[in-house]
Amino acid sequence: MDGARRAFAKHGYHRTTVAALEDEIGLSRGAIFSYFPSKLELFLALANVDQEHLMRVWLEGYEGVVRHLAEGDPDWLGAYLDVSRMLRNDPELRERWAKRNPELNEELERNFAARVAAGEIRDDLPLETIGRFLGLVYDGIALQLGAGFGEPIDVEGTIELLRSALAPK
Amino acid sequence: MDGARRAFAKHGYHRTTVAALEDEIGLSRGAIFSYFPSKLELFLALANVDQEHLMRVWLEGYEGVVRHLAEGDPDWLGAYLDVSRMLRNDPELRERWAKRNPELNEELERNFAARVAAGEIRDDLPLETIGRFLGLVYDGIALQLGAGFGEPIDVEGTIELLRSALAPK
Repeated sequence: MDGARRAFAKHGYHRTTVAALEDEIGLSRGAIFSYFPSKLELFLALANVDQEHLMRVWLEGYEGVVRHLAEGDPDWLGAYLDVSRMLRNDPELRERWAKRNPELNEELERNFAARVAAGEIRDDLPLETIGRFLGLVYDGIALQLGAGFGEPIDVEGTIELLRSALAPK
Repeated sequence: MDGARRAFAKHGYHRTTVAALEDEIGLSRGAIFSYFPSKLELFLALANVDQEHLMRVWLEGYEGVVRHLAEGDPDWLGAYLDVSRMLRNDPELRERWAKRNPELNEELERNFAARVAAGEIRDDLPLETIGRFLGLVYDGIALQLGAGFGEPIDVEGTIELLRSALAPK
């Protein structure tokens, strides 16, 4: 998995050839594709691991996700953008993408609702709106770092802005 | 310009052929490339127009940008993602991208500083951090709509969250 991640980060999704995967993973194509039926499935397996990790961080608090993303490998985020872009023209892939880690997704929703009930997060807006807002900020970080532009993100300042946004009124 | 925009929106940046441009624009390749030396220059001209429009909206208030993006053409945002992704491996293009509309950029900075001075926006964080934060949310909207996933954005809820984030303490 680490080798595959290195290959995608180095070349981007589209330009990662089977030879590049063999090279970085240190296994033959036969061996690689006995685990994963295609390059796409291999990438999706990595993206699932990523998302699972990110959601576990998120369960500890939305602040940690900002830190985690800002410290992530921009080259890997670039490959992530490649695949995000592919979703547009592939409804089936989009469906699978949206339904990764369903149990963790539900756990996150319950956790979020509990924080609202405990008065830690505002209750005057729908939970979906607040969750989506955090997602916009996270995806914005992924886009900006993946595209390679801009100064490093002011992580603590960004977290402070999120805290103000989500604070109970 | 409208024809070029339609072609990029329909096919994405990479798959927009010269024939597709001729088709949508209704001019020969000779005529098109007498105005713009390349497909990339044509795209950048459109992106400049977009950014200029967005900055003029932003000058009226950051809230309007959320509305403007959420109502934008997702297909065009898809082509925009293609080019964002190209920036990563092209420092020269990235430099040009970052330096579009320099006068408007400065006007926006002055406008922002004036709003802070007038007590409309918090003054306990660097202006760069706040501006960048807005940019993250805007790019997050572009990524999510361009990738074609998710429910429509709750525009008014998102604006309310931004207001809370930026409100003076």
